[in-house]
Formats: sequence, structure tokens, C-alpha cells
Amino acid sequence: MSQHRLLTLTTDFGTTSPYAAAMKGVILSINPHIQIFDLSHDIPPQDTRYASYFLATAAPYFPSGTVHLVVVDPGVGTERRLVCAEMAGQLFVAPDNGCLTDVIKRLGEPRQLRELSQPRWWRPEISDTFHGRDILAPTAAYLTLNIEPEQMGSPIRELIRLPDLPLNVDANQIQGVVACVDTFGNLITNIPNRMLQKRQIVAVRVKERTIARYCRTYGLAAPGELITLSSSCGHLEIAQNRGNAARLLGVEVGEPVVVEFQD
Amino acid sequence: MSQHRLLTLTTDFGTTSPYAAAMKGVILSINPHIQIFDLSHDIPPQDTRYASYFLATAAPYFPSGTVHLVVVDPGVGTERRLVCAEMAGQLFVAPDNGCLTDVIKRLGEPRQLRELSQPRWWRPEISDTFHGRDILAPTAAYLTLNIEPEQMGSPIRELIRLPDLPLNVDANQIQGVVACVDTFGNLITNIPNRMLQKRQIVAVRVKERTIARYCRTYGLAAPGELITLSSSCGHLEIAQNRGNAARLLGVEVGEPVVVEFQD
Amino acid sequence: MSQHRLLTLTTDFGTTSPYAAAMKGVILSINPHIQIFDLSHDIPPQDTRYASYFLATAAPYFPSGTVHLVVVDPGVGTERRLVCAEMAGQLFVAPDNGCLTDVIKRLGEPRQLRELSQPRWWRPEISDTFHGRDILAPTAAYLTLNIEPEQMGSPIRELIRLPDLPLNVDANQIQGVVACVDTFGNLITNIPNRMLQKRQIVAVRVKERTIARYCRTYGLAAPGELITLSSSCGHLEIAQNRGNAARLLGVEVGEPVVVEFQD
Repeated sequence: MSQHRLLTLTTDFGTTSPYAAAMKGVILSINPHIQIFDLSHDIPPQDTRYASYFLATAAPYFPSGTVHLVVVDPGVGTERRLVCAEMAGQLFVAPDNGCLTDVIKRLGEPRQLRELSQPRWWRPEISDTFHGRDILAPTAAYLTLNIEPEQMGSPIRELIRLPDLPLNVDANQIQGVVACVDTFGNLITNIPNRMLQKRQIVAVRVKERTIARYCRTYGLAAPGELITLSSSCGHLEIAQNRGNAARLLGVEVGEPVVVEFQD
Repeated sequence: MSQHRLLTLTTDFGTTSPYAAAMKGVILSINPHIQIFDLSHDIPPQDTRYASYFLATAAPYFPSGTVHLVVVDPGVGTERRLVCAEMAGQLFVAPDNGCLTDVIKRLGEPRQLRELSQPRWWRPEISDTFHGRDILAPTAAYLTLNIEPEQMGSPIRELIRLPDLPLNVDANQIQGVVACVDTFGNLITNIPNRMLQKRQIVAVRVKERTIARYCRTYGLAAPGELITLSSSCGHLEIAQNRGNAARLLGVEVGEPVVVEFQD
Repeated sequence: MSQHRLLTLTTDFGTTSPYAAAMKGVILSINPHIQIFDLSHDIPPQDTRYASYFLATAAPYFPSGTVHLVVVDPGVGTERRLVCAEMAGQLFVAPDNGCLTDVIKRLGEPRQLRELSQPRWWRPEISDTFHGRDILAPTAAYLTLNIEPEQMGSPIRELIRLPDLPLNVDANQIQGVVACVDTFGNLITNIPNRMLQKRQIVAVRVKERTIARYCRTYGLAAPGELITLSSSCGHLEIAQNRGNAARLLGVEVGEPVVVEFQD
């Protein structure tokens, strides 16, 4: 395996709390030469599904050899496993709680999958409530020193997967949901763009509103206009040009979205 | 030109959305040895004027050779240009939408100005809604590998500039506006400190309040007192010691501010 | 002293304001090879007590040789001192306003303590309102170039300390307060876990609620259940499994907490 020199952090710790900072200290105490890149500390608290979405949208762009440390861990201290998974030459160190579900769909089944069972790579004292600091961070740091995943623990068969978001495909319509509301209030659905290609869309419906217009990009709509587009992540998106569609429509993650096609 | 080893990011993506993370992956896939410094991902959404203010206040402190990647891009996918501009030995990679207006005032006219027109330096597939990831990020990454701006595209004459904020100077008063409300609720105006030197200020008025006292710094005022001072960025500032002037006064960006002088 | 290659930032500047970005520029202009790690820019504005708590929870995990730059500085420009303190081989560059109180409790009395009085290491022009940029940042940057603390200024005897949070220990109970509300709404108190060991806790009371159940970790409680636990930072914690205890109870920092023991 190639050398690992990059380490990323994805957590729900926020930046007001000192938890992400403590993890950085643990990592740098083991490998002071490592570069650490913050992906996000603002995953919604304990939201493993959002973490899964986030990682699938960001991780595929990273180079082989990157170590991704993921700490969204509502089950900390319980029987849930901690794992190291290799996909596309990248290593993911995370709780086995579904947060890698979507990244597997993007990068393929892990080539290497280990449960973290070797305390040799952990901090000497393990708290019951912060395995990010005590187990996951030191494990990720040792991986950047080219300790092999094989040394971290026993092989396991497969990871826990979150159930798919509802997506029903009929002859004349597709029913999906809002999978993510982004910073701009754009609604990213779970309906893949490829399901919409070469078909004549009559309307997209969300929360009793019907959106008739598809635009290639935001700025081609009138200011304030609601439109649908193909999101940069490969899914149907609903947006308001120069506005915030989520606020306008009162929509949150999970809201049903229907695409109607011409017969 | 000196070697470029530093890359900064300034975006309106927030840190809950995966967009800044995806750009980091793109950059590191091209140059895994680059140091990336987050300046901000919390520019108010699509606010090119705030981005311009932010960059002018931060960028002048960076060393020659820094590459600044700026993604505040409400016109993504439309006819607006993407550019690379060299000022004071620093390179700015950004949409041509006015976001470099104030940094030009600080650092001087670009010595080198190119439109990004060479797809050779872009990602192979270009989305319509995320040129930050598909064009700007790879361009900035190649610049850190010392590909010259000349290779990125055709020379252009000048950048789009935002109109100046209103600033009227009379014999007995100056009328300006609040240009920025900072984290502390301090109101940073567009009235330069140098216009106030050697003059006797009678009062500063904002939102029907008259502020009579000028202080050298916050802590010299009584707790809760409203004062005016010379901001660290070179402009008149209105602050409440140990408080939040913006909240107290109900003031937002754009609010008129009047300075009255003695005859 | 060992070589200093790591520099961390802890500020109350937020990431919308350009102040932390300007400091990064100042640092990188002096030492473009330094790695900068953001610990937090979201310390509550001017909250030196929170900064003290934050640093004590994060800094002990960093390696010897780290330089911590701390800018929470409500007294900027007044007579308060700026200092450099060495503890456990780490250097802290900060205003002398109590923000190092708790880190001293964790790491021990400073081995080396200097007032920053040598303008040679500062920016040429010093503003009255932003010593973070003009004095503290360049000082920290020169420390990473292995300029010794001795050269930064005169030795001083001791730092200003914040008064202890209230903690009263009786035969049958301990009275403390909430010292921190974390991202998850968990209430971290100032009551040390070691005071609770080997004793039979009858109840923990906060805001007229009585919490009877102690759990080793969150996930062992029923969803929504209020529990007490031993926090990962060594203090009694009150949490709601899969919920937000602070919001549920309407509790903020400073709220009294009582632990009752069996006779």
C-alpha cells in the first residue's frame, strides 16, 4: 500500500467543544509530521445518516493513501464495533454504525476490513464516552505511520448498513425524499440524475408546491424562482435562485419529492 | 515568481455541507504535499461584497507566493468568467464577480490577469453548479505546482468591480455606512481613519443614537458603554464595551453612519 | 528545548470575521513552513473562563514543543500583560487574563514565564484593538523558528488566575456547578469523578430535577433518559441519551448541581 501522509477529520463535535482539538493533540503526539485536514466538525449531532451522505460526497475526491477519521458515535462505549475499512486505497477509521453506507456505494466493497481489537494502538486509558480520542484517533495516527490495517485487529466480514432511503420508481413517476439540505437551502434528493435523463419531466412536486422549470444552473432562473436541476453530486436538486428553498418551502431532510413524467 | 507552497480557502459553503471537503480532496489529489489553510467557509451565502471585504482585511498579511482560492459564486455555470489574478506576488483564483474589488484597492492593480480558459487544468467532467470543485480547485492546485498563470488561459484587461459603498464628505460631516458587523457585534464602517485624524469629532450618529465618546480601545470604556474607535483595519468602528453594539442598536450592514465635526 | 514545528490557534473570533485569517497570514509570512492547527475560533466572545476550560481539556494531549496561540482578549490595548508560558514543554502565548488558569492545574506551574516586552518580535505598527495580529501572532511564529522565550521579554513571577468555580464538599453531599455545556447539550460539571468513587450516590439534582441513574455511557440508557456519568474529561456529567440535556432542562453554564450520598 502507498504511503499515508494525509489525515482528515469528520465529526459531530462542533468547534466550541474541545473534543476535536483533543483528538488533534492525540494524533500529533503520535505523528507530529502528519497533515490534518478538517472536513467537518458540524455533522448534525449523532446523525450517522448525514455523516454517510457527507462522506460519500467528499471522500471520492481524495487521493489513495488518505486516512479518514470519522467520529459520529452515538453508541460510544456500547457493544458497537470500531473498524478500519480500506476502499479505493483510502482508509476509513470509524464506528461501525452505518456511517460508511454511502461511501461503500460510491467506492465499492472494502478490500480490507478490520475490527479495532488491538489495544496496543490505543491510548493507555480508555474512557467510556470518548473513543474518538482514546481509540480512533491513535489508530488513525498509527495508520499514517504505515502500520498496516492487518495489525489493528481481526478481519470482519461486513459493515452495518443503513436502510436505503425510500425511492419508488413507477412508469409515470418517481417518489424519493430530500436527503440533504445544504448551506444555501438547496434540497438535494436521493433521486439519481441518470433516472431522469432522456425522459420528459412534467413537474416536480414537494410540500404541495409544483416546480415546472428545470434549469442547467441557478443563475439562469429569475431571482427568487424555484427550479429543479441536476446537483453536482449526481442527484435531482430543488433550489431557489438567490434564495433559500428550504426556508421558503419549510422543508427538512426526509420530505417526500415526486417527479412526474409525460406518458 | 517565487515558489507557491501555501493555499488558502475562502468560501460560502459552510462546514455542514460537503462542498469545501470535496474541494480539499481535489486539491490534494493533484498536490498531496500542499498546505491548505482555511480562511473562512462562513462568508454569508452568495455575498460577493462581504467576500471582497473579508479578503481585503486578511490577504494583505499573507506572504508572496500564496495561492488564494475564493469560491463565492452565485453565477456558477452562467457566462461569468473565472480568473486568476496576481497581486503583490499572491495569486487569487476566483469568479470574476466583484469579490476581488477591495483586495485590489489594498494590493494594487493585478500584475497578471488571466481568464481560466484552458480545460487542460480542470477536472475531466465539469458540472454546471460546482465550478469550485471542477475548475477553480484544480487550477489553484496546479498553481501550487508552479504551473504559471500564463498557462491557465488568455490574458484579460480588467476585473468586474463592485460599486463603492456610499461615502459623502462635506465640510462639517462625513456620511458613510456600516461595511461589516463582526463576531463581537462591532460595526466596522467604510469611513477611513485617516479622514478623521486632526479633526475635532463632535458626534457619531447611527440609527438615531448619538455616540459622543471616542476611545483608543474597548476596555477603556465603561462596561456597556457605546464608543467609537479606530478599527484595526483602518476604518471608523462603533462598539459596545463587553457588549454587542449591532444587537443593542439593531444595526445591519448598510446602515448609514454620520460623523459630525466642529466647525 | 525541542524543536517547535506545530502551532495551534484558539480564539473567539468566529470564522465569519477576517481576524483569524489575518493572523494566519502574519504567522505564515514569518514561518511559511509551519503547520497551523485550528483548535477553535468559536470560544464564546470574550469568555476567558471558557477559554481556560477549553485549553485544559485539549492542550494536555499535544506533544512537547507545540506552540499554542490563544486570543481571547477583552482587555486588548489596556494595561493587561501579554505573556509566554512554558508548561510541560509546550508554549502558550496569550493575554494574562486568566485564560491559562485551568491548564496550569493540569500541566503544573510554568517552568518559564515571560512578559512580551520586546517589540523586536512584533509587527512594526501596533494597533490598539488587535494585539492578536500585531503582537501575539508574530511572537508565536518566531517561537516556531526556535527563538527562545527568554528573548521575548522580561521574566515574571506568576499569571493572573480566575477564582475557582464554587465547589462545596459536605459529609452527605457535594455542591458544584455546570462548567461547560458541550455540543450535544451534555452538562459537564466541576465535580471531579475521583470525589465520587467508592461512594454511594443517592441522587444528582439540577434545576429541580432529580437524576437517579448513573450509566457508564450514553447508549446504555433508554432513548430520552436523563443520566449521570463520568465525563471523558474527569468530571461528573449529566446527559440525555439521544437528546440534549441543556435544552431539556433549560440549563446554562453556572447552574448549581448537587450530588447526594447515602449516609
